[in-house]
Amino acid sequence: MSEYDRGELVASRVKRIFSRIDDGVDLFVFANSTEPHIDLSFMYAAGLTDGLFEGCAVFGYPDGHAELATSALEEETAKRSGLPLHVFSKKAEREDAYRRLLKGHRIIGLNFAEITHRAVEELRSFAPKARFADVSNAVMKARLVKEPEEVEHIRNAARIASRSFEDILPAIKPGRRESDVAADLVYAMQRRGASGASFRTIVGSGPNSAEPHYTAGPRKIRKGDFIVIDFGALYHHYCSDVTRTVVVGKATQKQRDIYDTVRRAQASSMRKMRPGARAKAVDAAARSLIDATEYNGRFIHGLGHSIGLAVHDGGGIGPTSDIVLRRDMVFTNEPGIYLPGFGGVRIEDDVLITANGPRLLSTAPRDLIEV
Amino acid sequence: MSEYDRGELVASRVKRIFSRIDDGVDLFVFANSTEPHIDLSFMYAAGLTDGLFEGCAVFGYPDGHAELATSALEEETAKRSGLPLHVFSKKAEREDAYRRLLKGHRIIGLNFAEITHRAVEELRSFAPKARFADVSNAVMKARLVKEPEEVEHIRNAARIASRSFEDILPAIKPGRRESDVAADLVYAMQRRGASGASFRTIVGSGPNSAEPHYTAGPRKIRKGDFIVIDFGALYHHYCSDVTRTVVVGKATQKQRDIYDTVRRAQASSMRKMRPGARAKAVDAAARSLIDATEYNGRFIHGLGHSIGLAVHDGGGIGPTSDIVLRRDMVFTNEPGIYLPGFGGVRIEDDVLITANGPRLLSTAPRDLIEV
Repeated sequence: MSEYDRGELVASRVKRIFSRIDDGVDLFVFANSTEPHIDLSFMYAAGLTDGLFEGCAVFGYPDGHAELATSALEEETAKRSGLPLHVFSKKAEREDAYRRLLKGHRIIGLNFAEITHRAVEELRSFAPKARFADVSNAVMKARLVKEPEEVEHIRNAARIASRSFEDILPAIKPGRRESDVAADLVYAMQRRGASGASFRTIVGSGPNSAEPHYTAGPRKIRKGDFIVIDFGALYHHYCSDVTRTVVVGKATQKQRDIYDTVRRAQASSMRKMRPGARAKAVDAAARSLIDATEYNGRFIHGLGHSIGLAVHDGGGIGPTSDIVLRRDMVFTNEPGIYLPGFGGVRIEDDVLITANGPRLLSTAPRDLIEV
Repeated sequence: MSEYDRGELVASRVKRIFSRIDDGVDLFVFANSTEPHIDLSFMYAAGLTDGLFEGCAVFGYPDGHAELATSALEEETAKRSGLPLHVFSKKAEREDAYRRLLKGHRIIGLNFAEITHRAVEELRSFAPKARFADVSNAVMKARLVKEPEEVEHIRNAARIASRSFEDILPAIKPGRRESDVAADLVYAMQRRGASGASFRTIVGSGPNSAEPHYTAGPRKIRKGDFIVIDFGALYHHYCSDVTRTVVVGKATQKQRDIYDTVRRAQASSMRKMRPGARAKAVDAAARSLIDATEYNGRFIHGLGHSIGLAVHDGGGIGPTSDIVLRRDMVFTNEPGIYLPGFGGVRIEDDVLITANGPRLLSTAPRDLIEV
């Protein structure tokens, strides 16, 4: 994509955000603090897919124009945005640039959800007469609908994760620690081109598989275990998020029954992932199927969430969500059943909503695998 | 450490923070948002070294008492704090707990540097009559001085990183990509017990070694390259941060000269890392040595920074820093020389300040390595 095309891309994103703001905002500022306090909407509005940009900010205007205040340390990367740059080396230069860019603006939109309070106080000191308005909802809604380039990045992230899972299957065996399997998986993803894991990999074996928020520990894998493996790759700042559950050795009838129930819940809700579908109806399709079995009440989290620059990129698919699915949105679909003390099963895929219905971006095998 | 001991630990940390606050604050609240917007001071003040705790908060009182509001999903991990817990499952339960805990407090301290603006707005809605005060400076200063347990975690993180570097040395060779070497290193650290990398690993080869903010890309390593490798392990939430520079093949006289200059700058400044030393004098010891050579002006960043729960944990060692080194602080010492187009050298170690002077926590070889 040429710099000219990137300029068009940024303009359309900035306009898309402004089209969802209705209270007189004449400028938005997405400002980063120090890692990890980075606003991913900065990357989005600047059209950047690399770099860190601590202490930098993007300034967007209602006509789609945008400018970037960047540290000299990242000037080369910043140039890829194709935006006018305000490059600073020293603190005073940075403050001058911010003051100049804020000057004359009366209602300034900020992403309250991802900016630190200190950064807001600083902006207030630079523009004491301005009012600051929360535009986090507009940003979230704009980011929900993906452009072709974003879909490609997520598709690559999902492909890398899926293939890496298949790479490491032979290494899942009794006696190995959960944390070793997690390390194998992250390594495989990096070797396949991911810049890293999109979140801390979960390898929950045996009773640990019943805890959705578990990560990975020193427990050694044993014969008979369910193992829930929840992982994702980061590719040009875009995330995938996939879960597979395997059984160590031959699955018992009960294990097969739980797995099949989750599998059917996923298939049933997947069919509903079409433009115009209400998120809560998609969730209900999976939940009602599980709740009609002996596992009633054991699906203890929402069915899915939007993915993109963040693993939890905004909208959720759950019993109380109010969003409606649209073309070019990307969501996880991840039903699960958790039996404390016994174990759990979760199957999670990344799904692009198209005019023709759901399209799977993750490709790892979905049948029960006995390792 | 028993739960009783952890209670003592938390009390001493809470008191240490309050001892640095002097404007009538009668409660502090460190509140997390969604990943990555987590306040590491939450972990510190709650005495926790595991878990994620999105949407949770710790409430600290001037007498050293503290209480924890936690999601039911992390109740088991939260129990390790030994603190009184307020467990919530639903949104309304969470809000009730926060309102109850904030009630009657008039001046509430927040860590403005690590809390999102949205979280502050939410707390304001729960306690509309309270005033919120910035205690980020007190938190930063308290976290600068490490307890024995913290030093042990950092020492382990530094040991894991150092040994992992030695593990992967044979894999640094012409034809391999920077990103492959980065993947090898992260894998080695995870296999040695790290929960992950403490930041995105830098492998800058050839001209890329001249960019301090580079990460790792598809460039293939070539004979004659300098390679700057900047990496760290995460161990129970504590970070190490180490850099080594190697030469591919036999070093030229110029490469040896640059390396030796950086090495001498590090040794010279290291000797000054004693209790009572002014950070800017430590920086000056390295900088004046480099600036007296033909590489004058090519050391383009500060000499070091505090490490702990964060890689950049607060105080910096640079030309304008105003901190004074004290016993039990841990800093990086990382001078560098960067020649655009040619390449760069950085040598970085993790240093504990003791009554007897500097003690190195990172152990990887410091002599120039030809791979």
